[in-house]
Amino acid sequence: MRAEIIATGTELLSGTLDTNSIFISEELMLIGIETAFKTVVGDNGKDMEEALRIALGRVDVVIVTGGLGPTEDDVTREAVSAVLKKQLVPDGEALKSIRAFFIRRGREYIQANDKQALMPEGALLISNSVGVAPGFLIDYKACTLAVLPGVPREMKTMFTEVLASMLEDRFGGKIFIRRRILRTCGIFESMVNRAIEDLLKRGQPVIGLSAKETGVDIRIIARATSADRVKTMIDETEAEIRSRLGILVYGVDGIEMEETVGDLLTARGLKVAVAESCTAGLISRRLTNVAGSSAYFERSAITYSNISKHEMLGVPLELIERFGAVSAEVVAVMAKGIQSAAHVDLGLAVTGIAGPDGGSDAKPVGLVYLALATTQDVKTEEHRLLGGREQIRLRASQMALDMVRRHLLKA
Amino acid sequence: MRAEIIATGTELLSGTLDTNSIFISEELMLIGIETAFKTVVGDNGKDMEEALRIALGRVDVVIVTGGLGPTEDDVTREAVSAVLKKQLVPDGEALKSIRAFFIRRGREYIQANDKQALMPEGALLISNSVGVAPGFLIDYKACTLAVLPGVPREMKTMFTEVLASMLEDRFGGKIFIRRRILRTCGIFESMVNRAIEDLLKRGQPVIGLSAKETGVDIRIIARATSADRVKTMIDETEAEIRSRLGILVYGVDGIEMEETVGDLLTARGLKVAVAESCTAGLISRRLTNVAGSSAYFERSAITYSNISKHEMLGVPLELIERFGAVSAEVVAVMAKGIQSAAHVDLGLAVTGIAGPDGGSDAKPVGLVYLALATTQDVKTEEHRLLGGREQIRLRASQMALDMVRRHLLKA
Repeated sequence: MRAEIIATGTELLSGTLDTNSIFISEELMLIGIETAFKTVVGDNGKDMEEALRIALGRVDVVIVTGGLGPTEDDVTREAVSAVLKKQLVPDGEALKSIRAFFIRRGREYIQANDKQALMPEGALLISNSVGVAPGFLIDYKACTLAVLPGVPREMKTMFTEVLASMLEDRFGGKIFIRRRILRTCGIFESMVNRAIEDLLKRGQPVIGLSAKETGVDIRIIARATSADRVKTMIDETEAEIRSRLGILVYGVDGIEMEETVGDLLTARGLKVAVAESCTAGLISRRLTNVAGSSAYFERSAITYSNISKHEMLGVPLELIERFGAVSAEVVAVMAKGIQSAAHVDLGLAVTGIAGPDGGSDAKPVGLVYLALATTQDVKTEEHRLLGGREQIRLRASQMALDMVRRHLLKA
Repeated sequence: MRAEIIATGTELLSGTLDTNSIFISEELMLIGIETAFKTVVGDNGKDMEEALRIALGRVDVVIVTGGLGPTEDDVTREAVSAVLKKQLVPDGEALKSIRAFFIRRGREYIQANDKQALMPEGALLISNSVGVAPGFLIDYKACTLAVLPGVPREMKTMFTEVLASMLEDRFGGKIFIRRRILRTCGIFESMVNRAIEDLLKRGQPVIGLSAKETGVDIRIIARATSADRVKTMIDETEAEIRSRLGILVYGVDGIEMEETVGDLLTARGLKVAVAESCTAGLISRRLTNVAGSSAYFERSAITYSNISKHEMLGVPLELIERFGAVSAEVVAVMAKGIQSAAHVDLGLAVTGIAGPDGGSDAKPVGLVYLALATTQDVKTEEHRLLGGREQIRLRASQMALDMVRRHLLKA
């Protein structure tokens, strides 16, 4: 089963990314439908008709997003009608729900919105519980065509609430495809490659690597004719990879490093405080991205100037003079300083040279020192990170959070 | 002149966004070529051939990215050869540069890389100064086809260094299109709409609005047959919009609020320090996104707990007890506290309820207080922001930075 996703909207041809189709292709995969093509067209009736005609001729399922609004720019309905040679007729249920939407919001009803209740003859309504424009599903020759609005929240809700089970009924259960991502930190892509070369070559499940700023993601994709079989394949492959990479795997699927660290801190009932120089708030921001993080995150000092390192963290100015603000000696005192000032279990500190300026032969751009202080001792690490300013800061924040994770796993 | 962009790569059909085509469509626009279609295909020779055949039949310019590497997965070269019925022949110059690349990097040369020097007969080389795989340009009937690698850095460099002038020679100078974006903060889309309704209706230059988390962007797109005329049209429209929106416009094109604030602080020789509660480092991080920001950013205190607000900023615990940590009273003392602790000109503070928990009827999620302290006085603002946790934090950081901007413009 192959699908094509057509996104319409002139803004998608210039500055706006089509994020809808990422969601749709993942959802389709879970029903066993592989996305073969994605097409973006502008708000142009003729182009839309052509895109529809081509798609209906080459795949089994076509999903269209966008162009269902009430304005002249919204051409999807008319294009479907023209290509399928089906008249547009008002759908009673759709009309009722559109009018109800305006009443609920206390907004004046504009007649132009009636247009949004039009559907090709014989189409099935896909109701919209979070917005105005409904979508529809219609069969054409051997192909199934579903049309949804372009607003991401509406599209996603309608896909999950209505369309997914319609597609599942038609196409589900024949083949099962599942994906799992293992996220690693602190190892190069080439090293991961070497560690699991035989698994990569085996071809089933399909394993792919992608190097992100924050580490290497390992994608496992399995397909089989039973859901149990797929799950077993993925579980076995995950176990095999974990047995080789061990502590380097920090999360699964969409889990971010800060969530793993937050879970570990919560489980152990520990609190952390942070002293940041080059990352300037990024570590704190990431830790507090997690709702409920106030249970384990106490405070941070962002000490950009030398005097602030002294005043906020108790770093002796002589120490900075002697070793430099970017040094293992200074970062250790920063970590101990914030841990004791905040009266918490763990003090995490980072200092480094994010560039583009400020580097030297002895201390190049990308040199970063990390320290983790407990009530008993302080550990430090030195890293040499590659990339531009933003990459170095992001990578430093990832290595710093990972230092906490590794400590907690050992502790 | 209409173009189609074809991106190849199976990862682009699932989890990875095609960001290349955003860059390409903007560059094409500047040469006067409008992007009419974008197509994404997997690493599948037959699908690629079909996509090429369709594109070559419906537009004037086709740009392909990806599929030029040395592996079996890389199908672009063969697909072009099949569709254009042109044999692939090794290009001497390409072969030399590929080998030189490996020597420069001190890496062992693998014969398989020779494949990357293959080009369809009659194609023009697009050399790659930052990677291995070169691209090529070839004419087919009335259409021009250019092929570039998928790695964004290589694609962008090759487009700018080589392809842009090739396309300019062929298609440039007939029509000139320029775009300018005016970025606003602190005004709703519907209000911007009302303020410039007549300009929106005029239709030339085309004006579009897009509501971002951080404010409303106003896009001006002008087209004319002379570069001067286009510039005049854009300048006049910008002046007209600025005369109506005044101080609400904070930047042009890609300028972020933190850059505008940084420029103003630099121009006035002032320093800032920040006290953050709900934004937890985001404001500091944004301020220091700008290289050279250490000249005006001194330090921050991220005070998540009440005791840290007391210890780091001198907020009396009684004040927090009486008015709550999220209050105008507390934020004012936070701002004054960080300004005086850091010995700087400006102290910026924020406290609020980012959610999802912690809200009440009296103080709902989204309630945010801002304060800006100078050596003389403190001003506070109350905002009620919409959205999820991440949106509220982003919007709060934007409003806080904007408070500094508005202060500096008046000061």
